[in-house]
Order: sequence, then C-alpha cells, then structure tokens
Amino acid sequence: MADAEPVPIRRARADQARLVADVLRQQIHVGGYPQGLPTEAELSAEFGVSRNAIREALTTLKDEGLIDRGPKVGTQVAIRKYDHGLDALVGLKETFKSYGEVRNEVRAAMLVAAPPAVARRLDLPPGAQVLFIERLRFLGDLPLSLDKTYLAPDIGADILGRPLETNDIFALLEEVTGRRLGSASLAVEAVPADAHSAAILQVPEGAAVLLLERLTHLDDGRPVDLEYIRMRGDRITLRGNLIRELS
Amino acid sequence: MADAEPVPIRRARADQARLVADVLRQQIHVGGYPQGLPTEAELSAEFGVSRNAIREALTTLKDEGLIDRGPKVGTQVAIRKYDHGLDALVGLKETFKSYGEVRNEVRAAMLVAAPPAVARRLDLPPGAQVLFIERLRFLGDLPLSLDKTYLAPDIGADILGRPLETNDIFALLEEVTGRRLGSASLAVEAVPADAHSAAILQVPEGAAVLLLERLTHLDDGRPVDLEYIRMRGDRITLRGNLIRELS
Repeated sequence: MADAEPVPIRRARADQARLVADVLRQQIHVGGYPQGLPTEAELSAEFGVSRNAIREALTTLKDEGLIDRGPKVGTQVAIRKYDHGLDALVGLKETFKSYGEVRNEVRAAMLVAAPPAVARRLDLPPGAQVLFIERLRFLGDLPLSLDKTYLAPDIGADILGRPLETNDIFALLEEVTGRRLGSASLAVEAVPADAHSAAILQVPEGAAVLLLERLTHLDDGRPVDLEYIRMRGDRITLRGNLIRELS
Repeated sequence: MADAEPVPIRRARADQARLVADVLRQQIHVGGYPQGLPTEAELSAEFGVSRNAIREALTTLKDEGLIDRGPKVGTQVAIRKYDHGLDALVGLKETFKSYGEVRNEVRAAMLVAAPPAVARRLDLPPGAQVLFIERLRFLGDLPLSLDKTYLAPDIGADILGRPLETNDIFALLEEVTGRRLGSASLAVEAVPADAHSAAILQVPEGAAVLLLERLTHLDDGRPVDLEYIRMRGDRITLRGNLIRELS
C-alpha cells in the first residue's frame, strides 16, 4: 500500500480547511514555522486541497490570533503557546524558567472563612479560616493565568510573609513546611471566560479558558493547597503521557 | 487560629460570586446536590456572602447550562459532567461503561494521503496513505466528542472492516495487531468551537471545547494512531493525578 498513489482528500471544503488548520495549529504550537508559513500555493500542494480551503484554514488561525497575514510579510506566527506539564507537580515559574521570568501580581492575600466545600477538601472543620490568595501570573508582559489558592491555615500563616510576587506557591510550601509535596489530584475543564476573568486575563468575554482544579498534598498525605487556575486557552497547552494499564 | 472567629469574605460582589460559582460548579461535577441546591438564603449563610452575590453566582451557572431554576422546583442540577481519565490510556466506551452506552456515528472512514505533519508523527514517508476516520461519539443521545483519527496504513486496512460504530479504536487496535497499546503523548487545549464542529457537537459557535491531540504507540514503541479529539467543555472533565518528581 505504501507504493500506491496517494488518494487526495475529497471532502467538503469546510472539513478540509478544519483538517489543515488542526495540523498547522499543532505545528505552530511546537515552534514550527519560525520564518513564517509557506505560501498558499505551497500549502495547497502540500496538503492536496484547494487554495480556497487553505485560505479558509488560515482565516481560522488568524481569527484565533495564532498568525498574522500581510501582503509584504506573508503569513507569520503571531503567538506562541507555552507547554505546561500534566505529568509532574511543577509550578508555573519552575515550568517556564526556560521561556522567561514569571511574575505574580498578588490581587488578594487574606484570611477568609473557608467555604464548606473548600473546608471539606482541605480536611478542615466547617467555617475554619484559610489563607486565600489570588494571583495574576505573567510571563514577561503576557498574562497567562489567574490563580485562586486556598491554603491550610497554619501553613498559610507562614506563607503570608514570603515573597509571593516572585515565587511559586509550591516552592514556598516546601520551604515553610520542610516537607516535599506528595501528589495532587487534578481536574481540567474548558470553560468560557466570565466577564471578570476575561478582563483580567485580557481576553474577550466567553473566550475558551482552561480551568484546572488542583488539590495538592504534602508527602505525608495531608491536603494543604486547593487551587482554581484559569489559564488562557490561546496561550497554554497541557502536555503529558498516558500509559495503558493492565486490565 | 482554628479557634478564631471566621472572617467573612470582604470582596467586590463579582469576585464573591465567582468564588461561589467555582465551588458550586465543582460540587455539581462530582455529583453533588442530586436533590437540588440549597435555597439562596441557605447558600448566603453557608458562604458568608450576600444574597445578591449568591444570585449572581447562580446566574453564572445557569448561563453555563449547569442548573435550572424555577419558582416551584428551586434550583436543580441540569447537566452532569462526565469524567475522563488523564492517567491511563483508555477509550471513551471503556471509560463510560458505568454511565451508559457509547455509540459512534462514523462520518468518514477512508484512505487519504497523509498531510506532511501527520506522516511525520506516524513515522511514515511523505505522502503515504493513512486511514482517516471521523466519528461523532454519543453517550446515549448526548454528543460528547468529535474525533478525527489517522491510523498507520497496514493497521488501518485491518480496522476498516471492523464495527467502528460500537467499539473504541483502542480496543480494535489491540485486536487487529495482537499487541497491547504502550504509551501515548497527549496535548490538551481549550479552543473555541469552529462553526462546523459547533454544529455537529450541538454547541454554540465559539463555545469552549477541550481539544486533545493524542499520539498512541503500540507496546513495541511504534506510533500507529494520531487523534484530534474535540470534547464538549460543558460535558467532560479530565481528571488525573500528579506526582512531585525528585529534582
């Protein structure tokens, strides 16, 4: 079969355009096309679809803010997505150290009465106080994520005086407790940005956002850190590996 | 500190409403409130915020389609999100067997010339043929995900005659190759639904969708299955565990 003539993709143009956009999007996300994308004619030949389908695919990517197009400059990658690991328990600053400096705008850091569901997750009595921290996290000038963190009160009290602007909570947790982090349970959802989050993250209201809920335990199993993290969908890709378990 | 009086959350109402909505959303997703949510007055007391903030939070959840509200019935959970594992390599049918029957509407199954990036990922020569399969996947009557799959040609030829409507590709891969699946690399993004996908998945255009790109290898390391999976953000939560790696 490898010797057979390739069969061109015969599908509705919208379908073809979507396929092409999917492939190009992934290429862009892994750092492809640093010198710009091929011409429409080249892409048309490469994918075996019409130039109209290519044009439609490029329009999709342009609408997503992934590319810029101009008569002189051709088609350039406009945005870079950043990878965040799904395999290991690593903070944003630690993750992005090869890309640049992560800084945190601390929007709130205060003791609050834990909402019941938060108290339950952190194994605290109803109404217990927790340290609530809200941070807007930047890579350079780019707002990447809006993180709301609830910390167990004893640990929170120790963390409150630390430099939250320049550190991952994970690093501070290990520092103040003298313990290693153990494991975390993670839930990932795609949600529309509410008006408030959208304004802070500088995306349109309703834009697709990755919402992570992460409950982190110390290595003795104690749950200490419950976070709700909204990451800009246009800027962050979560990456990990899956293994087939024995059935 | 555990004995101190709880300090009520003093924040802008929009912030309070967002916090309450976050907590309630997670509760709903893990199957909370099967008999309906507490009253506004009860929630207001529970969270220590005004009824206006509670009302705003409930409006957010209603707009997301998560709850229904009515003068007689109170506030009911309108939708259930389904969990999909991030830890193991398991197909949708296998994942959801406790929820109900997964069926697949096979929208396309044909040999195509692999786009260059697809050929590269599957370790095939440029222009090689691959089996392309597009499936809309339902749990009962609910469209959950739109999956586009590229399979290595030899394996694809064997799979083409199998009952794609009622089986996970993963199960078929193991059946036709006589091998186990090994590992897969996974990328997860939140993207807006394009018009075409939105219509098929029965969501509004631009709705937040989880886009998974997954490259699956057999246990001998050969990459055989490249998938682009669009999951409805309002219906699926990805769940997994993270472990702190030794630094």
